[in-house]
Amino acid sequence: MNHSEIGQIRLNIASREWVIYAPSRRKRPQDFHAISSSENSKKVKKNHCPFCDLNETIILEMPSVDDRPWQTRVIQNKFPALVSKGKPQRTKEGIYLTMPGYGQHEVVIETPDHEQNLALMPIAEIEVLIETYHQRYLALMEDSSNLLTIIFRNYGEKAGASLTHPHSQIIATSIVPQHRRWTEEEAQRYFDRWGQCVYCDILSHEQENGQRIIGENETFVAFVPYAASLPFEIWIMPKEHQADFGSITPQEKTDFAHLLKDVLMRLYDKLNNPDYNYVINTSARYKAEEPQVHWYCQILPRLTITAGFELATGININPSLPELDADFLNS
Amino acid sequence: MNHSEIGQIRLNIASREWVIYAPSRRKRPQDFHAISSSENSKKVKKNHCPFCDLNETIILEMPSVDDRPWQTRVIQNKFPALVSKGKPQRTKEGIYLTMPGYGQHEVVIETPDHEQNLALMPIAEIEVLIETYHQRYLALMEDSSNLLTIIFRNYGEKAGASLTHPHSQIIATSIVPQHRRWTEEEAQRYFDRWGQCVYCDILSHEQENGQRIIGENETFVAFVPYAASLPFEIWIMPKEHQADFGSITPQEKTDFAHLLKDVLMRLYDKLNNPDYNYVINTSARYKAEEPQVHWYCQILPRLTITAGFELATGININPSLPELDADFLNS
Repeated sequence: MNHSEIGQIRLNIASREWVIYAPSRRKRPQDFHAISSSENSKKVKKNHCPFCDLNETIILEMPSVDDRPWQTRVIQNKFPALVSKGKPQRTKEGIYLTMPGYGQHEVVIETPDHEQNLALMPIAEIEVLIETYHQRYLALMEDSSNLLTIIFRNYGEKAGASLTHPHSQIIATSIVPQHRRWTEEEAQRYFDRWGQCVYCDILSHEQENGQRIIGENETFVAFVPYAASLPFEIWIMPKEHQADFGSITPQEKTDFAHLLKDVLMRLYDKLNNPDYNYVINTSARYKAEEPQVHWYCQILPRLTITAGFELATGININPSLPELDADFLNS
Repeated sequence: MNHSEIGQIRLNIASREWVIYAPSRRKRPQDFHAISSSENSKKVKKNHCPFCDLNETIILEMPSVDDRPWQTRVIQNKFPALVSKGKPQRTKEGIYLTMPGYGQHEVVIETPDHEQNLALMPIAEIEVLIETYHQRYLALMEDSSNLLTIIFRNYGEKAGASLTHPHSQIIATSIVPQHRRWTEEEAQRYFDRWGQCVYCDILSHEQENGQRIIGENETFVAFVPYAASLPFEIWIMPKEHQADFGSITPQEKTDFAHLLKDVLMRLYDKLNNPDYNYVINTSARYKAEEPQVHWYCQILPRLTITAGFELATGININPSLPELDADFLNS
């Protein structure tokens, strides 16, 4: 299989949700047979780490300091969900809609140290990671075909990570997902009604109320949201209204790094190093200046399993309570 | 903890998504610590099955035939996500919105045989199961506070099942989830444009095209949808336009049972008894007669893990291809 072959993105015309089909990530149907029997589910190749012995072109490298050969490296994902070839042109296929799998998919290698854990990394290294995110975000958004750039981290098997070497991922897409539009439209309705950004209002309410706050510094607040969808969901949000992660200031990068480390450290300590995803939710292109969108980092520990009711309705059943989660992390 | 204590449903005001907090399902924060270490994740009590030794009030029982003491039984879930006490009245909590955890949460015990597997059950027993679904669906929708009734099945640990005795669940809610409204609105836009139900159009397109069809009988078609969000996702859909599962006819119940068994049997055979969820997606109250909504049974094998990008954007990365999945199940 040619890994640079372009995949496709198909539209579910009943729900307007896009689904990505990437040739480089494709498994043969019979491979799913093996996955379904749990003994075979984790054949990890322990001897070879593709991030320790790098064969890929380096897109960005934060250079050597002290005794470390480099700080962070960014490469193209070896099995990209999307590739920047061709054009993001929609085509009809009968009643359906499809388009080439246009976009970018990068991996941020967070440290040369295979055994490192982000929660335990020195703060200076986490600052470099945020700086790396920021530089790649700005670079990817310079390509006018990219309408949305999503920075995310899958940590642990239950969060979908297949490699243990500390890494994050960045995907830039030429589509704005329905899910994102819905949320933006809600924020816009709120703004049109109240004349305020809903996230700014949430932030002031949480600061006043206090019972769900996990941490705060000059420019950021971390809290368990009032309607957390999962146990120990945490939002880290800039205090200043800012739709676009690209607008983050140097001071904010430092403060974000500090609060991110603080939060990850508490999860590590109090919940025994749980699997988690985090994602930087930011505005789509053309929304970067809007008064109703507000970027934030959403941390989703994977302590529960999403079952049929949740999948069908989008209503999560959360077996914890946000105030108890906050108390526990603060105890 | 009092299990009949009423929980609450909170609204995420930024996304308009509801989250259920049920006292009977609550874990203490420190319990999540144990869950996160994989050795402790499955302390199954093997000796005691609460469905074999029933202590609950029976809401509905399909009576004894041949040597079987009963066929199916319906009980209230011992750990209900929702309970029908009080009123589904919204209350402001600062800038937020909350309401009591009003609703119903039932368990359908599918057979007296603890070791049985739905895919392997005789067709007559699956017909009785569909009949049970239908009777409970109609009964629950008679309560005017219930706006949506969702029938679903979690099979296997990866699908969120905690008990192995064959069972399904039914949840009736007094809220219509945002997720459902979005989908209904899409279908309405399609109808307003094309004058057709989008699901009816999908069905005829699939029948004409043929390459994603898994099975068909007089009144139902099973197929892998064009934009399947997961490997081996399958939709079983009535051929006749029908918004409401409650409208299913006796002939259709038989045909649905046959096709459900056929599909589950193929998954069992070809994919080595995979974990899965299925759900009956049906109209919310007041939409039951509408020309643009169409009920169907959605089967979601849990062969992959949802990671950060999917959680953030709602765009799934499917490592298979619908046509290959259909070929494989038909081979």
